Amino acid sequence: MRETRTLAEYVVNSRWEDVPADVRHEAARSLVNYLGCALGGSNDPAVDAAIRALAPYSGPPTAVVLGRVDRLDPLHASLMNGISSHVYDFDDTTPQNYIHPSSPVASALFAYASANPVSGREFVHAFVLGFEAESRVGNAVYPSHYDVGWHITGTAGVFGAAAAIGRLRRLSVQQMVWALGLAATQAAGLREMFGSMGKAFHPGRSAQNGYAAALLAEAGFTAGERGIEGPRGFAAVLSASYDMPKVTEALGVDFNLRRNTYKPFPCGIVNHPTIEACIQVHDTHNVDPQAIRAVRLRVAPLVLDLCNQQNITTGLQGKFSVYHGAAVGLVRGRAGIQEYTDDAVNDATVKRVRESTTAVGDASLTEDQASVEVALADGRVLRQSIEQSLGNVHRPLSDEQLAAKFRRQAVLAVSEAQADSALALCWRIAELPSVGELIAATVPMGQVASVGAPAR
Amino acid sequence: MRETRTLAEYVVNSRWEDVPADVRHEAARSLVNYLGCALGGSNDPAVDAAIRALAPYSGPPTAVVLGRVDRLDPLHASLMNGISSHVYDFDDTTPQNYIHPSSPVASALFAYASANPVSGREFVHAFVLGFEAESRVGNAVYPSHYDVGWHITGTAGVFGAAAAIGRLRRLSVQQMVWALGLAATQAAGLREMFGSMGKAFHPGRSAQNGYAAALLAEAGFTAGERGIEGPRGFAAVLSASYDMPKVTEALGVDFNLRRNTYKPFPCGIVNHPTIEACIQVHDTHNVDPQAIRAVRLRVAPLVLDLCNQQNITTGLQGKFSVYHGAAVGLVRGRAGIQEYTDDAVNDATVKRVRESTTAVGDASLTEDQASVEVALADGRVLRQSIEQSLGNVHRPLSDEQLAAKFRRQAVLAVSEAQADSALALCWRIAELPSVGELIAATVPMGQVASVGAPAR
Repeated sequence: MRETRTLAEYVVNSRWEDVPADVRHEAARSLVNYLGCALGGSNDPAVDAAIRALAPYSGPPTAVVLGRVDRLDPLHASLMNGISSHVYDFDDTTPQNYIHPSSPVASALFAYASANPVSGREFVHAFVLGFEAESRVGNAVYPSHYDVGWHITGTAGVFGAAAAIGRLRRLSVQQMVWALGLAATQAAGLREMFGSMGKAFHPGRSAQNGYAAALLAEAGFTAGERGIEGPRGFAAVLSASYDMPKVTEALGVDFNLRRNTYKPFPCGIVNHPTIEACIQVHDTHNVDPQAIRAVRLRVAPLVLDLCNQQNITTGLQGKFSVYHGAAVGLVRGRAGIQEYTDDAVNDATVKRVRESTTAVGDASLTEDQASVEVALADGRVLRQSIEQSLGNVHRPLSDEQLAAKFRRQAVLAVSEAQADSALALCWRIAELPSVGELIAATVPMGQVASVGAPAR
Repeated sequence: MRETRTLAEYVVNSRWEDVPADVRHEAARSLVNYLGCALGGSNDPAVDAAIRALAPYSGPPTAVVLGRVDRLDPLHASLMNGISSHVYDFDDTTPQNYIHPSSPVASALFAYASANPVSGREFVHAFVLGFEAESRVGNAVYPSHYDVGWHITGTAGVFGAAAAIGRLRRLSVQQMVWALGLAATQAAGLREMFGSMGKAFHPGRSAQNGYAAALLAEAGFTAGERGIEGPRGFAAVLSASYDMPKVTEALGVDFNLRRNTYKPFPCGIVNHPTIEACIQVHDTHNVDPQAIRAVRLRVAPLVLDLCNQQNITTGLQGKFSVYHGAAVGLVRGRAGIQEYTDDAVNDATVKRVRESTTAVGDASLTEDQASVEVALADGRVLRQSIEQSLGNVHRPLSDEQLAAKFRRQAVLAVSEAQADSALALCWRIAELPSVGELIAATVPMGQVASVGAPAR
């Protein structure tokens, strides 16, 4: 009945001592994974375009854009961090609601902590609370909300950013209620944008808008008191059905961070078991791509709802094509960032195998499962099934695998030495006197670009 | 089937010669009404709070905040103009979709034109096109979209701002398609905010976000190609039912500006016939407020859906209380800005009459009609009905009434001489070599405030 206020009270009053050790460690894992993705995507054309468009409107450039020499005001830096960390679709996922949870929250927090002194403990605590707020709002409306076409990372993410920044700003409960209300009334992001830069815009804008919601509430800008549960509030308006008690049940006891997962492949997570099966076929049978005549996939029905694009020309589209995932797995035996470039999508061999692939939905399969059949020119049919997708909650990436994933991405933005330094600091982020030390390690060595040219 | 692209083509290719004279004149009337509202609301605490919160994040202060000495970057100025022009709920309405149409579009345009050279003709043309874009998107989804709880001024308004600024930036058709897509994916604003500052935030944020959408698209930031009509696009996701052909039918021939209306009272428009009836009772019968025993209203059912708040304490709540509207009409014989302050809402006599008022919904009444019965201590019962509400499309405010409304509001921000000067310039805005001349007349004489202090 008063979910918004109960959630606000929790975020305002939570103590560090109340955050269990395993949750603290999972927070560090999430932040390592996040930071690698933000560095890896930081030179993507989407980030370049957004900075080109909006840097002339930046306020005093007190904040770091992760992985870049550009500095912007903290709100614009939040936006850019959100774009870079999600643009390769390599960031984390909570499968119970399909939110990519770290990007909206951490993008705002790193921008904030690059412009303000924040201890590692305060930072991790705010991250845990923001993660919890967005997850709980998402849990309450999933799946109805997602099924109708909302990109839940954008719509739920704004609550997480508002809660996290509001916590660091030490909002009162009333101010936090308003911050959550101003988050609710900015909740946006359509799945129609999938396959364009607009998808990565969503966590960025939710980070920026949640941050602004906290600032506005702090200054006394009022909102409706029941932004989440009110009759014209977030849940009622953005979801055909919802389960409101999920916002508050076991609050402070059950932490959604425990169910976070990290991707081994930079694409829509529902493609992962298919890709893994195809890589296994490649590795086991040393398949000559030219010999592949037909590839037949059996996948969970949601895969075809989300990733049914076959006739594609861009890397971004490839991330939402189970056919492309199968093709790169079979042709290259891997599916890293280089397999999701425009070049890779237009590679003649990859294209031929992609176009030789068919898929059927099978309701007996979960989204962690897939079966692959590969018919070869010599008449052989190779088969491989996956029962639990690598990276899911039952087969999580180890700390070592996360570290390797971090390094592969971070070196796209900074030197190996800087990457190693940032990684070491990020593992022990909760112990840092100031998160600024970590953030400094993410700025490429070199001249700082000028920003703040006259606005149009 | 391709509504987004068809609308983009129209906005890009429209010629000034294609805008009929009556539409040009209605644009000037809308802009006079808009500018008066923006000046009248410019010192409201909501604007103060938003500037306090966000000015530290402003880019180079090249743009005017209408009615204030503050300058901000054009994106933040768009936000502030949107808040000030809607905060008294005195701005225009298109009753066929309940959008307050000028605020999202003109708030962005005035910010843009205060930082860039724009001729009056370009400005009015962009306004007409932005107005048309947002109206058509709104028409397609109303009433289902509004009924579920969306504040359509925010959700449709962002399309209008994107189209108008995109036109001035001379976007290509492809860029305009992306701008409309980035508008679609930012469409937000919940009716749960009604009665708080959050309501006025909506047109402001839609102005700011539509402006940013145009800038991003210009820089090559891509979006889905079918932001409005796609299977996961605006209409499908934000409305249970819709009539997509309304986006494009009679485009360039039927102008929604012809159906714009201007409010005589600064509150929810559905309260207007009730207020007018009560003022007529007051004026005709010289009623002593102390003698009022009971007030009985018959109103259209939507009035009770929107404005059924009786136990209220703030001016903002009063705007959505048909009981408060009736009370000030009967007690004071008027319903101007001074009747919607916190003081007026807490005035003991007004409060007593408000609490003596009951209302019933009557499906035989339109939203332009109301009936009032006032029972007096001496046993008399006074009755008054309104068949066509003042200010509706059948009883529009005259140019002279709009001018008087402008002056009453403008003097809350600038001198009478400045108000007269701005009014004269606004009537002939399409002839001005530069809109900057008009905007200069809206800045209060006095010292320019500093902005751009270090961001938090």
